[in-house]
Amino acid sequence: MPLRQMTSQVSVETTGRRLYPVTDAMVAWIASSGIKTGLLTLFVPHTSASLLIQENYDPDVQSDLERFFSRLVPEGDPLFAHVLEGPDDMPAHVRAALTQTHLGVPVVNGRLALGTWQGIYLYEHRARGRRRHILLHLLGDD
Amino acid sequence: MPLRQMTSQVSVETTGRRLYPVTDAMVAWIASSGIKTGLLTLFVPHTSASLLIQENYDPDVQSDLERFFSRLVPEGDPLFAHVLEGPDDMPAHVRAALTQTHLGVPVVNGRLALGTWQGIYLYEHRARGRRRHILLHLLGDD
Amino acid sequence: MPLRQMTSQVSVETTGRRLYPVTDAMVAWIASSGIKTGLLTLFVPHTSASLLIQENYDPDVQSDLERFFSRLVPEGDPLFAHVLEGPDDMPAHVRAALTQTHLGVPVVNGRLALGTWQGIYLYEHRARGRRRHILLHLLGDD
Repeated sequence: MPLRQMTSQVSVETTGRRLYPVTDAMVAWIASSGIKTGLLTLFVPHTSASLLIQENYDPDVQSDLERFFSRLVPEGDPLFAHVLEGPDDMPAHVRAALTQTHLGVPVVNGRLALGTWQGIYLYEHRARGRRRHILLHLLGDD
Repeated sequence: MPLRQMTSQVSVETTGRRLYPVTDAMVAWIASSGIKTGLLTLFVPHTSASLLIQENYDPDVQSDLERFFSRLVPEGDPLFAHVLEGPDDMPAHVRAALTQTHLGVPVVNGRLALGTWQGIYLYEHRARGRRRHILLHLLGDD
Repeated sequence: MPLRQMTSQVSVETTGRRLYPVTDAMVAWIASSGIKTGLLTLFVPHTSASLLIQENYDPDVQSDLERFFSRLVPEGDPLFAHVLEGPDDMPAHVRAALTQTHLGVPVVNGRLALGTWQGIYLYEHRARGRRRHILLHLLGDD
């Protein structure tokens, strides 16, 4: 079968700084695509939210991760001149720089080839939530 | 239309540690390619420069980001044994590890699907500039 | 020639926290594939190991990098609640978040377009080794 591509989009309503699971939406879309072997690429068109693959089992991992980033890039750091949009805005840009704007995950036998303990997350870095988008690109064949 | 791929290269003359905008060169190349839907991949063949998508509006964001990385990975850190190439060399490798060697950005309706506030940057991590290269790979169809 | 894709897998037996070179396995697979122009994507299905492109010449760079990450994300940090799997487990998840779960590298003239000083590494973040896997996806044409 010749290679083909498909695109889609997923939206997430966030409510503050934390990881939001999006794996299920990816799994459902790939199943509906009919593609059996290929590569999924995710992209966030945002500068204060990002993407991350993380441990999906113990909720402590996600709260530990959030505490680590909050300490590493603290609000109100006198280092930052960009404060017009609030004390959480510049830390959000730094946190986005330290994580991912795009991810790639292989598709094998019609399924995302995530490890047992891996989940895909949108990482909201602003203190207040907003509507976030993830663009999806799927390459592969049947 | 069958899927096709194209490759190209962009060079940037840097003059020290900061972000260098490269979005316009990507936009022009995609427009000339005729590809309407697909995926752009960027890659830097360097270990002391990297790629980053960041806020493109307030110049303070880029200088704040640079100050953050300079503090997180300071020159002259006694931790570092690799100092032969100068005090900025090992910090440059660490900063490259914390950011991106490659980026992927979807192409939608013949345009890069960047968010309104997103720009693509080459991030020079050495104190002195040099000639840097970005390899481009474009997959898609018309 | 029409575009085609190939997939493969590489395994690495790790023996503790450090970088493990995997470039040679990628180079050999690409040479055997017959693909001359394209894009290689690597993915690790793990949450406490990751991927990194780093300087491949001076071994001090790799040990400096490891010391940097060990200091940035220390074992036994009272910040972390997730300690059931040992003091090195949560730091491993954070280190994986700060580096890469996937990498993309262009293929040009039948060879990986790595820079002279670039090597591809699996980064083991657990204190004890284990068997790690890297999934490979190659897109391109002859």
